[in-house]
Amino acid sequence: MTSEEPKLQFWYDFASPYSFLAAMRIDDLATASGVEVQYRPLFLWGVFKARGWERPPATFAARVDYMWRDVARHAARAGHPFQRPSTFPRNSVLSDRLACVALREGWVAPLTRAVFEAAFVENADIADPKVLAHVVEGLGGDGHAAVAQAQAGPAKQHLQDLTDEALSLGVFGAPSFVAEGELFWGDDRLGEALDWSLEHRVGESREAAR
Amino acid sequence: MTSEEPKLQFWYDFASPYSFLAAMRIDDLATASGVEVQYRPLFLWGVFKARGWERPPATFAARVDYMWRDVARHAARAGHPFQRPSTFPRNSVLSDRLACVALREGWVAPLTRAVFEAAFVENADIADPKVLAHVVEGLGGDGHAAVAQAQAGPAKQHLQDLTDEALSLGVFGAPSFVAEGELFWGDDRLGEALDWSLEHRVGESREAAR
Repeated sequence: MTSEEPKLQFWYDFASPYSFLAAMRIDDLATASGVEVQYRPLFLWGVFKARGWERPPATFAARVDYMWRDVARHAARAGHPFQRPSTFPRNSVLSDRLACVALREGWVAPLTRAVFEAAFVENADIADPKVLAHVVEGLGGDGHAAVAQAQAGPAKQHLQDLTDEALSLGVFGAPSFVAEGELFWGDDRLGEALDWSLEHRVGESREAAR
Repeated sequence: MTSEEPKLQFWYDFASPYSFLAAMRIDDLATASGVEVQYRPLFLWGVFKARGWERPPATFAARVDYMWRDVARHAARAGHPFQRPSTFPRNSVLSDRLACVALREGWVAPLTRAVFEAAFVENADIADPKVLAHVVEGLGGDGHAAVAQAQAGPAKQHLQDLTDEALSLGVFGAPSFVAEGELFWGDDRLGEALDWSLEHRVGESREAAR
């Protein structure tokens, strides 16, 4: 019996700049660590409302200015292109639902990167169904069909269920990472979350016990 | 002419758990980098009010629970003792004013570490003048005299002036670091802030120009 591969849940929303930073690097880091990433879209605005934030911290002027500067510094350090979106926050609900469709069908990782790049590199309006269809087509998929699915009941319910699950795990912002039940918040905690999933994986104790 | 030593402003408040984490490690890191730390106490509640936060994000339940877990993880990684204070946030205004007294008199670094340890290791009530006098005495100072100075007009004005200066620099939370005019927020940005002060120091361009 081999030890189960450690897993890390990656909770994100396409309106979130720090989720963009995390999405750009999580697969490379996780692969290097031998950790499996479980993509988990959520609806961040719904999380904020459930937590009692009618006005999220990141919408206050001083903090917004800082955030874009900080995100630009981090993108530059990572050597990744970045463009501040002309509208913030974007309405992300349709793109989050599209990620639910892709999750069910097994293409969520490339879709996630492509939507984040549309939002934070190309300054595209990811609330626009045509923009999302174009993103899907860039991945070789049927854009019209995928967006139609994202607009239908099952995808709406899937996103609601995932958002509720995130709340039950203690999530209050994005990105968040959950490793063996332990919550980490923010792109800057990605390394620690990966370490945690390696150090505390369920298989580890079984290994040690043999 | 030798290049001027690079400087890093460290803005903090004694109610702030992440300021505690930063204070525990900033001197060692800065010394290793050859950067001079400039201690800058501020009154964080005043910053929040000025920014329009009647209720700071860190007072929401889900976020508070996470914060203590996160601080405990970081203290453990750093090998530093930590105890969650029985009251949060503590009223920090008198301790912040005491730091202004120590700043003026040249003993702010040891006073800062000692107050943070009282608050976040010993669970002492740093709003209590007797607690603060005891901290000062532990450093070999005159506790009664120092606390009396902290309660007097000049110290109050000094803290107000520093808080106003922080606001003018774009500060919205603590700890914050300012390196050659560039703002960094959060204990997890300390390394980047030190790098910035080294890479962008004023003396550097003079050196290069010679």
